[in-house]
Amino acid sequence: MNIFAGFDKRPGELTRQQLEDCYYRVMNNPLDINMTRGLPSPAQLDLANSFLFLPGQSSFVSAHAVDWRNYGCLQGLPEVRKLVAEALLGLPADQIAVGENSSLALMHETLGYAFSHGLCTSPRPWGKEPLVKFLCPVPGYDRHFAMCEEFNIEMIPVPLLETGPDMDMIERLVASDPTIKGMWCVPKYSNPSGAVYCGETVARLARMPTAADDFVLFWDNAYAVHHLTDDEVQNQPIAQLCEEARHTDRYFIFASTSKIVLPGAGLAFIGSSTTNLTWWLNHRKCRTIGPDKVNQLRHLLFFRDDKGVSNHMKKHRSLLAPKFERLEVELSKGFNGVGQVSWTRPQGGYFVSLDLPQGCASRAVDLALRVGLALTQAGATHPKGLDPLDSNIRLAPTYLDLETLGVAAQVLVLCVLLSIAQQERTR
Amino acid sequence: MNIFAGFDKRPGELTRQQLEDCYYRVMNNPLDINMTRGLPSPAQLDLANSFLFLPGQSSFVSAHAVDWRNYGCLQGLPEVRKLVAEALLGLPADQIAVGENSSLALMHETLGYAFSHGLCTSPRPWGKEPLVKFLCPVPGYDRHFAMCEEFNIEMIPVPLLETGPDMDMIERLVASDPTIKGMWCVPKYSNPSGAVYCGETVARLARMPTAADDFVLFWDNAYAVHHLTDDEVQNQPIAQLCEEARHTDRYFIFASTSKIVLPGAGLAFIGSSTTNLTWWLNHRKCRTIGPDKVNQLRHLLFFRDDKGVSNHMKKHRSLLAPKFERLEVELSKGFNGVGQVSWTRPQGGYFVSLDLPQGCASRAVDLALRVGLALTQAGATHPKGLDPLDSNIRLAPTYLDLETLGVAAQVLVLCVLLSIAQQERTR
Repeated sequence: MNIFAGFDKRPGELTRQQLEDCYYRVMNNPLDINMTRGLPSPAQLDLANSFLFLPGQSSFVSAHAVDWRNYGCLQGLPEVRKLVAEALLGLPADQIAVGENSSLALMHETLGYAFSHGLCTSPRPWGKEPLVKFLCPVPGYDRHFAMCEEFNIEMIPVPLLETGPDMDMIERLVASDPTIKGMWCVPKYSNPSGAVYCGETVARLARMPTAADDFVLFWDNAYAVHHLTDDEVQNQPIAQLCEEARHTDRYFIFASTSKIVLPGAGLAFIGSSTTNLTWWLNHRKCRTIGPDKVNQLRHLLFFRDDKGVSNHMKKHRSLLAPKFERLEVELSKGFNGVGQVSWTRPQGGYFVSLDLPQGCASRAVDLALRVGLALTQAGATHPKGLDPLDSNIRLAPTYLDLETLGVAAQVLVLCVLLSIAQQERTR
Repeated sequence: MNIFAGFDKRPGELTRQQLEDCYYRVMNNPLDINMTRGLPSPAQLDLANSFLFLPGQSSFVSAHAVDWRNYGCLQGLPEVRKLVAEALLGLPADQIAVGENSSLALMHETLGYAFSHGLCTSPRPWGKEPLVKFLCPVPGYDRHFAMCEEFNIEMIPVPLLETGPDMDMIERLVASDPTIKGMWCVPKYSNPSGAVYCGETVARLARMPTAADDFVLFWDNAYAVHHLTDDEVQNQPIAQLCEEARHTDRYFIFASTSKIVLPGAGLAFIGSSTTNLTWWLNHRKCRTIGPDKVNQLRHLLFFRDDKGVSNHMKKHRSLLAPKFERLEVELSKGFNGVGQVSWTRPQGGYFVSLDLPQGCASRAVDLALRVGLALTQAGATHPKGLDPLDSNIRLAPTYLDLETLGVAAQVLVLCVLLSIAQQERTR
């Protein structure tokens, strides 16, 4: 399908009238396509079919000698911690704990303990502070921002560059403002731009002086092994660099297998310094008797070892990479010659970040919605859903099949071009 | 085995010297028995063997039309809510939500929201109150008390009678003290006494005037279907009674399948008024994308319907009831003629509560531990682990096999009698 068929010009050269003609043509046969969230596709879910039969009649006996079917083992089975510790968190197994199914919930839980009791490094509970601020690289993940709102944390947007967040700005801010207690980081294949924090960025985050003694990095390693190319990017090890800089307790690392096995049915992990993890488990023991060890064993039997994890991720990649390629092809074709539009070409993760001329994003999203293409809400990539330039849209190509994705991308191009054309007319 | 063999007297008639002779005999062949916690036995865990193969290749499609393998469905699958709503929570399915594996965690989460934001009925967040108090029926559940400590909630012990907590005392307290914001309730087969809140108790809890507008019952229905006899006790419906008394938002009900399928691998549930549940889900959506729906489906396939749940509980009962009977026999024999010792005869649940003369509990527990019988810490059934009379011990007979339980019960009797004898000597 080509929604621009019949024109002998590039889409970017079409007049507003021609774009509107295209648009009304689509409106007559509206779509029903949802690209709002980064969902794995049904084909990806099928990769975990055998996971659904596990653990079966397993004779597994954990080294820690507690029956995996019974209560106990707050930190999680050592065998499962060993399976993921290095690959997903870059930490030794004794510095991580296994949670339930959601890394987001572990972040929320950690913030909860920080507010009610303070971190190990805090002079007092964050809840007793007049003001707590977090640095928020933008474009970023809307659920991180929503959590800040929930905890009444003031968000300071920091531009996310190709090398990671703007470190000059960050160093300046944290050096002088003791109310800046933390920072969200998606260090690899960041949501939504796909940016990877370079070595220098990670090193500077680890060593920078901060006015707050209890400044902490919420290191959301959501896409640790979610590569799209042969170049399997590795971040510099934040834990080691923090330790070397004598900021041993500056980080909490989060990861999960939600986008490795099945969303919702995976395992979430938290890792940190020994001191921080002990602090965290001490609070957690008031909250739960222990995590779901049956699901832990399920993971162990499904993956066997870290090689099993990376092999499985190659299967995801073989399903995902063609989608990112297809999206890239459609955007390149559609925006050929349109200098005001740019987008990212991520080497991993789940998203592409699209930048439009100022003031065009929300109209483009609205236009798309009116013809049945639901995109992520404009502004969602910014704190409180407010993109001051109204220029950024997150694209989530993973769920759709290739054919549908192609249609969606063309309609997206159309809506963006029309949005720009309408804005030029109204100026 | 009979550790009192060789004496032609009842244990309660033995002299201190004779008791000590028995004790040293045990000490020469020390036990290795752990009765500290209410764990299901391996035979009980085996009842869920087929659960471990589920869901397998299921063609299930939920009425809510979201793929159960993917993200979403914050409240939980409607089919699973329907399965448990009435039987475990006494509520319609739309008034409950499915959490992760731990009802304790849902209680913690709810307290967290109450402290950070306040309940629907609260004038301000509990964290902004100078003082928050909870009523704590004693003997009670140590993890409830530990959670109060974690949240810095002041605990007011209230005697738990056979009909439930002392309602005269409670009505007096809540009527005058606006800092009393809540109360722990285990309304059926209470931990540890097995007490069942009678109809009058439930009705009075529902209708009593409280000085705090946001007074709330934390209704921990942990043993909703955990009967030990044919007399399957039902509490009066707290939700309905609260509604009738126009205290619609006075309760949160909690339950889980931890002691129905497998500890840790079950599902936890929260239920309340529509207003409260909406409030709760509004906070929860900042915390997680959704619960583990694969485990929900696993439950659905395993139980099919609420009849499946009650049939499964009959299998648990057939394993558990003989243990409670054995314990009863040993205690009756051992304490025959000893008027200072009493214990409960629960019709369900996981525990027996043992009352000794004042000042004897911790010594009895210590004596037992020194010969290799680990009992629940004396005092654990009271706030902060402090039993002012030092007289109560929680007995957890479920995990041990009958033979081992018999030995443990005899050693317990010995240690209790010796503790009493030693106290009489030192007076």
